[in-house]
Amino acid sequence: MEQGLSNYLQERAAMVEQTLQELLPAAEVVPGILHEAMRYSTFAGGKRLRPILCLAGAELVGGRPEIVREAACALEMIHTYSLIHDDLPCMDDDDLRRGRPTNHRVFGEAVAVLAGDALLTLAFQILATYPAQVPAERRCRVVQFVGEASGSLGMVGGQVLDLEGEGQRLSRAEMQQMHASKTGRLLRAALCSGGILAGASPREIKAMDDYAAAFGLAFQITDDILDVTGNVEKLGKAPGSDQRKEKATYPALFGLDASRRMAAEMVARATAALQEFGARAEILKQLAIFLLEREQ
Amino acid sequence: MEQGLSNYLQERAAMVEQTLQELLPAAEVVPGILHEAMRYSTFAGGKRLRPILCLAGAELVGGRPEIVREAACALEMIHTYSLIHDDLPCMDDDDLRRGRPTNHRVFGEAVAVLAGDALLTLAFQILATYPAQVPAERRCRVVQFVGEASGSLGMVGGQVLDLEGEGQRLSRAEMQQMHASKTGRLLRAALCSGGILAGASPREIKAMDDYAAAFGLAFQITDDILDVTGNVEKLGKAPGSDQRKEKATYPALFGLDASRRMAAEMVARATAALQEFGARAEILKQLAIFLLEREQ
Repeated sequence: MEQGLSNYLQERAAMVEQTLQELLPAAEVVPGILHEAMRYSTFAGGKRLRPILCLAGAELVGGRPEIVREAACALEMIHTYSLIHDDLPCMDDDDLRRGRPTNHRVFGEAVAVLAGDALLTLAFQILATYPAQVPAERRCRVVQFVGEASGSLGMVGGQVLDLEGEGQRLSRAEMQQMHASKTGRLLRAALCSGGILAGASPREIKAMDDYAAAFGLAFQITDDILDVTGNVEKLGKAPGSDQRKEKATYPALFGLDASRRMAAEMVARATAALQEFGARAEILKQLAIFLLEREQ
Repeated sequence: MEQGLSNYLQERAAMVEQTLQELLPAAEVVPGILHEAMRYSTFAGGKRLRPILCLAGAELVGGRPEIVREAACALEMIHTYSLIHDDLPCMDDDDLRRGRPTNHRVFGEAVAVLAGDALLTLAFQILATYPAQVPAERRCRVVQFVGEASGSLGMVGGQVLDLEGEGQRLSRAEMQQMHASKTGRLLRAALCSGGILAGASPREIKAMDDYAAAFGLAFQITDDILDVTGNVEKLGKAPGSDQRKEKATYPALFGLDASRRMAAEMVARATAALQEFGARAEILKQLAIFLLEREQ
């Protein structure tokens, strides 16, 4: 990774970490087990990709990242809730996530469901509240945008398509549709939310959306590839789990080589979308290229 | 029931029904099973108490109910999502709700969890969008208010306290705390949201909140009483289920007579809170009194 990108990601992740600590109720607040469960999965070593995209969205149009730090954390809470629910026995039934027991393995299924519900609720509350200094109209637009991206026509719908697709042979179009909903929509909402809050123009929002859509697909393809080629220490979970569940993945459908080519094609498309932002887009371009080389 | 109240409830429920039909994606929209599941529990013969309170909140300060009809439906979606998740095998494990099989009995647990998630998400999206003609600041306040009422310090937290309380002997204070969180907070948010959107003053919002808090407790006590004295046709579920689960209820703790007195006391407190609204408060006063006499 380029030194500049590495420093950027580290600094932004630290800002997110600090803000999440402030926004989540302490484990001592009643009901303690619920807040403990919410914190357990939130502070489980995630890459903070969505909140960093939100901060980067503000920066792309010259906004200070601090201004959207709470909104950025709301995006991470939505991501975290979706992981908790996806891991449940009735869904993917996973015991490990990022190298640690999944939420329901530690707190039981009931608390895991409720911790997810509470994180989702808190996320929207935060998006309606911060940043206090921007016009409320922008905050409402972000709640709408994020709601659409994460609801039945977005992330939640994608999870249903994913469950339905197990054991089925999906076409490339069907699989892209599933991934675009399940992962892509929230990534797009993250980057665009930062932009909207910082006052980006509709044209600028459109460019961010194009970047994030291509970025999201490249990210998913790489995820699928790592499930075949990765190792358990770096992944924090056993590789090959997609195959065991007969999930529709890019390598399963097109082979590793073609999958790698598709990911590279998407990264090129992502970086091309950011031309108009000039030098400010440098970090996001590097981030997309780094995606191809990651090992976790 | 008074004829005026009966007509009022019927007309308002019809407005809610119609609006819910418009707001929920059709069962044909992909993923169909998810939208079918969302609709199954939304149109399951609920009393529409929360949305009617929201409409009534606007009317208390002279607003037209039509203006807040979408927001009212968002409150019902939050209520519905909470019922779907509470009925899950890992929570209350109920097979029947309002006389019909519960969501997970029809669609499976995975889809039931996701249908709840999607209803919650859609609710916030709607609250940020409607009514378009009021200042966005008011919509943001409603998202905050409803979020706080339904999250880890409100409804979801109350459900955790409820699960923790099973088989335990709670004090009156602990039980009131649990019910105030689990049921009361959303009822308060419903009435106050209507008020906020219609431009009520802080003082008026406070009076609505006082009414709804007392109303909520009376409602809960009556619910507990009906679980002891009700019959399966009217309740739509087998009575005695609280007792079987060793739930902390008012009759279990104080006996039926004392519980009835407490409910009457709360209804008196609720109606007293509405003095300043004069004749506009008539319907809500009647509604509180009707609570004491209901059989379902």
